[in-house]
This record gives sequence, structure tokens and C-alpha cells, in this order.
Amino acid sequence: MEILEKISTTLQLVRDKKPLIHHITNYVTVNDCANITLSIGASPVMADDVVEVAEMVSFASALVLNIGTLQARTIESMLAAGKAAKEKGIPVILDPVGAGATQLRTRTAERIISEVAPNVIRGNMSEIKVLLGTQAKIRGVDSIADEQDAVEVAQQLAERLHCVVAVTGKTDIITNGRQVYAIQNGHPIMANVTGTGCMATSLTGSCCGAATEDIIGAAAGILIMGLAGERAYASLQGEESVGTFHARLFDEVYTMTADKIFQGGKITPLS
Amino acid sequence: MEILEKISTTLQLVRDKKPLIHHITNYVTVNDCANITLSIGASPVMADDVVEVAEMVSFASALVLNIGTLQARTIESMLAAGKAAKEKGIPVILDPVGAGATQLRTRTAERIISEVAPNVIRGNMSEIKVLLGTQAKIRGVDSIADEQDAVEVAQQLAERLHCVVAVTGKTDIITNGRQVYAIQNGHPIMANVTGTGCMATSLTGSCCGAATEDIIGAAAGILIMGLAGERAYASLQGEESVGTFHARLFDEVYTMTADKIFQGGKITPLS
Amino acid sequence: MEILEKISTTLQLVRDKKPLIHHITNYVTVNDCANITLSIGASPVMADDVVEVAEMVSFASALVLNIGTLQARTIESMLAAGKAAKEKGIPVILDPVGAGATQLRTRTAERIISEVAPNVIRGNMSEIKVLLGTQAKIRGVDSIADEQDAVEVAQQLAERLHCVVAVTGKTDIITNGRQVYAIQNGHPIMANVTGTGCMATSLTGSCCGAATEDIIGAAAGILIMGLAGERAYASLQGEESVGTFHARLFDEVYTMTADKIFQGGKITPLS
Repeated sequence: MEILEKISTTLQLVRDKKPLIHHITNYVTVNDCANITLSIGASPVMADDVVEVAEMVSFASALVLNIGTLQARTIESMLAAGKAAKEKGIPVILDPVGAGATQLRTRTAERIISEVAPNVIRGNMSEIKVLLGTQAKIRGVDSIADEQDAVEVAQQLAERLHCVVAVTGKTDIITNGRQVYAIQNGHPIMANVTGTGCMATSLTGSCCGAATEDIIGAAAGILIMGLAGERAYASLQGEESVGTFHARLFDEVYTMTADKIFQGGKITPLS
Repeated sequence: MEILEKISTTLQLVRDKKPLIHHITNYVTVNDCANITLSIGASPVMADDVVEVAEMVSFASALVLNIGTLQARTIESMLAAGKAAKEKGIPVILDPVGAGATQLRTRTAERIISEVAPNVIRGNMSEIKVLLGTQAKIRGVDSIADEQDAVEVAQQLAERLHCVVAVTGKTDIITNGRQVYAIQNGHPIMANVTGTGCMATSLTGSCCGAATEDIIGAAAGILIMGLAGERAYASLQGEESVGTFHARLFDEVYTMTADKIFQGGKITPLS
Repeated sequence: MEILEKISTTLQLVRDKKPLIHHITNYVTVNDCANITLSIGASPVMADDVVEVAEMVSFASALVLNIGTLQARTIESMLAAGKAAKEKGIPVILDPVGAGATQLRTRTAERIISEVAPNVIRGNMSEIKVLLGTQAKIRGVDSIADEQDAVEVAQQLAERLHCVVAVTGKTDIITNGRQVYAIQNGHPIMANVTGTGCMATSLTGSCCGAATEDIIGAAAGILIMGLAGERAYASLQGEESVGTFHARLFDEVYTMTADKIFQGGKITPLS
């Protein structure tokens, strides 16, 4: 299948190029973001002081902006780094964690979108709906939605913003407005470990830092995360559950291969 | 035994209600706090910008304030969130990490107590003694104390502040001033993993977010943490020690059941 | 071999004295730094508000300054804590993470060196070269260099600053300008887990907090980290890789013994 070929190629490109991925992210899952970036073969750097972010991002192959623990100080850093990245043609990936939960998060996500114009936005259904302006009931940072709904919302937002939108949930939808992919990998236990969404965004950044097209980078990052989650779950024994699963996620991303992607990848082009 | 029944019921309530637990906490153990909250079945949200904390806590079922890495910025956020929580009847759990070690920590813990009036305070013997005004020798964030001493100190503080006090140590004491429970679960290796105290506080928050009484929430959180620690230790093999133990703590909280609580819970009402 | 004897003795001193190690560090690997400090038998405390750092460090046996996620707020705290430590004769260990990558990091590392005069500097080859003023090509926080180069650079910097310099890489070089040790422990997989450098610095801090000489403390911290890495790698089975390896690092430091050091330690005095 052509798209699995492209995803496998992207994984190889990441390992060959070892792209530097600059993150401005939250302090809850930052260690996991760094480790998942290393696990796939990219190189993470975390720097968020406004004095250094434009300089740091100039060496990077992608910039990940994650608003999970937003504060006045880092908002300015995200905007400065985002603008510097775009000027140099470095892809920017936005994770609008909790958009819709508070006005600060919604406003900041919108401000990054309008001032930076990210290449990829990766969020759950609630967050993406909020960015589209749809009224969505938000409860924390989780959400449930059906697939058809996700396709429409993601496509509308991608068309409006001229970017790639990745909505993750039971089925993940990746679209640039024209092409649409649905991914069926992953396991429900992933929702019981904090940061699996953030890590999917970091893998998306890692892949976009090496891929030729943002939509392929996003599909690769999301599919590899889901497949690693399935495989990590399958490896559990006895009383092992979320804690052991958490450690195994990194094991599985690190040992991911083209073969595993061809055998286990569940991705379908919808249009 | 009646109290084990109530603790088991509380665990089930957490899993049924999935209460949202707003944390303003330290950056050392924040990932562990989020993951232990998910492990028991509650839903964590970490937000500490003063602009959004009152809005965020209004969706929450409990608020955890942990002063482990205090700074001027987050002190204001803790006070704002704490007051907003209390106005809405949302239980506030304070972890006065390192109270007594520096004046900033002691003063801030006292300020939170006087301005917010937390429902539950969970600390070690040194920290609780400092809050009571007793001169206690502090060394880092650890402490050793005997059980009788702990009962007296905890009861005095609970009576004075009209709240629940949980002193954790070799024996954990949970009291609202009238009722007193002693818990004998746990394992000494827990002191060799950072954040086991913070995690006990997060579990207390999770349980208080679902329980009908704060003292039951605190007893449930502390007992489940200790029992998970014992079971995680018992699962170790060969050279496995603190690192593997750390991961297994989450496994054990996630797979905790009423049966395990009835079989392994060691809690005694002292009055 | 005499130096292995001294390293084993230092490990025992750490476990006997349980030195308190004050860290002002980055939020990416702070949890790992705290846990590795506990694993070797020391006691970590993380505090970075400028109001409390001088007070906190006065109780400590060593101070670790790590500039991995530098910001205006913590720069002042590092300088204040560093000066207070030096006044009291408490050893200061500097990890100049990313020096050379941005001007902020280079300038801050230089400022700490000139205003605090750290006892030990632990970095990779690129970082140490930058501090020496040599033009070095920097890519993120990684570097490759050959052993002879490392010896010269480390020795020059140590002589100029009258401190111990530890350059970690394939071969680690530890020198105070006169004595030079080369360590051949470690495993390449360590570069695929974030924070192994930071953890080596925390172990150096832990050992310097108990050792009689800084160079022995640095050699002990670096050798124990490398040996733990080798042993953790050797313990992996099947698909286990970086995630499981990360957890096992703590297991191996916690269960380190004099016997393991004598059997597996690969350290050579070069002068």
C-alpha cells in the first residue's frame, strides 16, 4: 500500500537525518517528549527563554509548540520561535492542549494560529472543534467523537488554515483538506498514560523534520505512535499495566521497523 | 472491617465518576502525579497560570496544591485557585513539601492554610510539626518519628484547623481531630523513589474528589498508595530495584481491587 | 587498582552520609536527576526561587547547577545559590548543557564560571571546547570527539579554572589539570535516553558531597553512571530497549557494589 511505503520511508529518513526538533512544551510530559523523539531517531532540544528561542530554532528541522502548561512567559517564546521558524521554512507543529477548557488556552491557540500559521495541528476532537469555532463540550483534555464527525471537522479546519490537521481518537484522521487518511492503530490503555497525545505530536514533529510532505510526516508520527501502543500493550504480562506499558512505548518506537509498519499499520485513504 | 469497606467503595466511586483533579504542583514529580491520578481512574489537569487557574478549578472535583518547587509566580496561582475552589465547595488538598526547610516554604504553607483553609493536609512528620509550630529539626524533605508522637501532632493540627491531617511515615496517621486511623501499609523502598509522597497526595485528591467524607478520601488515597508500594516491591526479581519499582507502582494502582484492599489493607481505628 | 578502591570507598561514603544535594536544574530531566541521586544513596532537593536558594544550599553537601532549560529567573537563582555555596565551602558542580548552542547558554555558563568558580564542570566535548574558547561546531547538545583531543581540552580548561573538568563521550576524561583519568565504561544506547548526561552530573554531585577530593567524586560519579549503563543494557531481553533501559539505570545504580566496581570499572590514570 502506497501510504505505508511512504511512512516506512519517512521512518528511515528520520534515522538517517537525525533531525533536531525544538520543543516549547509543558513540564508535565516534557521528559516523555524528549525520550520519544530520541526513540524514533531524532534529536530533541528544549529551550523556552524568549532570549534564545529564535537562535535555537534556526538550527532545528521542526518546531513543536505544546500549550499544555501555558504561562505568560512561554506564550511570548512560542510566538517568537514560531515566527522565526516560519521565516526559515522550518515546519511548526501545534498541540493545542486543553483549547476550549480555559479562555487563556483557546486564545493562545488562536493567537499562535493567526500569528505563526502552523504547518500541522494535532489535537483531540474537542480541541479541534474549538479551533473551528464549533461549540464543543470540554471536560479536561479528553474527548470522544465519531469518525465521520472527525473527518468533517478536520477537513474544514485544514481547508480554512491551509495546514495539516490531525485529530486523534479511536480513529485518527489526518488531512490537508484534500487528502484524508484514517488510522485505526492504537489501544484504549494509551488514554491512561499522560502524554501519549504529546508524544504523538513529538513524533509528528520528528517525522515532519525529515519528510518531504507535512501530511506524510503527520501520518507517520501518528501511525507509529499508535502501532507502538498496540505492541507495547501486547507485550504486557501478569499484573503489568500502565507503568510498564509507559516504559515499553519507548522500547517499541525505538525498535519500530518497516516490516512492523507493513504488517501492523492500519491506515486507509478516505479521499 | 467497616473502614476497608468504605475505602473499597471510594475506589469504585473514583472509577465511576472519573473526577477531574486540578494540580498546581512541582516540576520534579508532576509526571508521576498525573500518571498516578490516571492509574486510580481519575483525570488530572495541570494548570498554573494565574490567568486561568480559577476558571480551570471550577470544572474540577478536587484541587491539589503541592509546594515542592515553589516560586513567586505559582504562589499567587495557588492562592487564587484555592480560594476559587473553596467558594465552590471543591476540596483542597495541601502538600506542604519542605515546610520548615526554608522560610519561603514555611510562610507559604501557612499563608495557604490561613487564606484557603485546605480540607486535607498531607505531609511527613517534620512538615506537620512545623505547621503546628513545634520546633522540628528538618533535613531535606525526609523525617522519622514515632507513632504516638504522630497521633498527637496530627490530632492537634486537625483540631486547630478543622481539617483532615495525614502524616505519612512508617505508620501513617489520618485524623480529623476526632476519628484517628493508623495505616501500616507501605515499604521502606518507597523513600528511595522521589515523589511517593506527592503521589500519595494526588491519590488523596483523587479519592476526595469522589468520596463523601474527606477523612475517607484521605485514608483511601494513603492506604492504596502504601498497598501498591508493598505489592510493587513484592513483584521485583533479580537485580530489579527502584527503577522497575517506580514503574510497577502505577501498574499496582491501576490494577488495585476491592479484594486486594480487603486482603492487604492494614488500617486500624485508634479512636 | 588504587583509583577503583577510592571510587568504592566514595560510594560507601555516599551511603553512609546520605549527603543532601541541592539542584537547580532543567525541567526535562529533573525527575531522573532526583531519582538517580536517591538511587546512589544521597538525598536530592530541588529549589530554585531566588528567595530560598541561599538558605536551602546552606544545608546541602553539594550544589548542582544545570543550565538545560535556562531562563532569566533561574539564572539569578543559580548565581545566588552558587555564591552562597562557595562561601560555605560546599562544592559546586556545573553542567553547561548546550553551551555554544545559543549565546544565552554560552554567556550564562561563562558567568557562572566567573562569578561562582565551580569545583567541577561536567560536559560533552562541544560544551567544554566552547568554555575553553575553541571554536567548536555545535549540533544540539551532542558531540563526538577523539580521546587525545578530549584530554588536551579538559586539561587546559581545568588548569585555567583551577577546577575539575569531566568530559564525557566514548571515553570519559576526568582531570584537575595535573591528574588525568580515562574511563571506558558506558554503552552507546545511553545517548538515546535523555538525561544520561544530567544524571552523570547528579551522581558527580552526590559523590562530591561525600568524597574527600573533587576529582575522586567526579571519577566516582562518572564511572558509576557508565557501569550502570553497561549493566542495564546487558539486562535487556527481546524487544526491550530504551524505555526499559531507562528504568533499569536506576536499578543498577541502587544495586551498585564495590565488587561490581572492581570487576567492571574501566578507569586508567593517564598522568
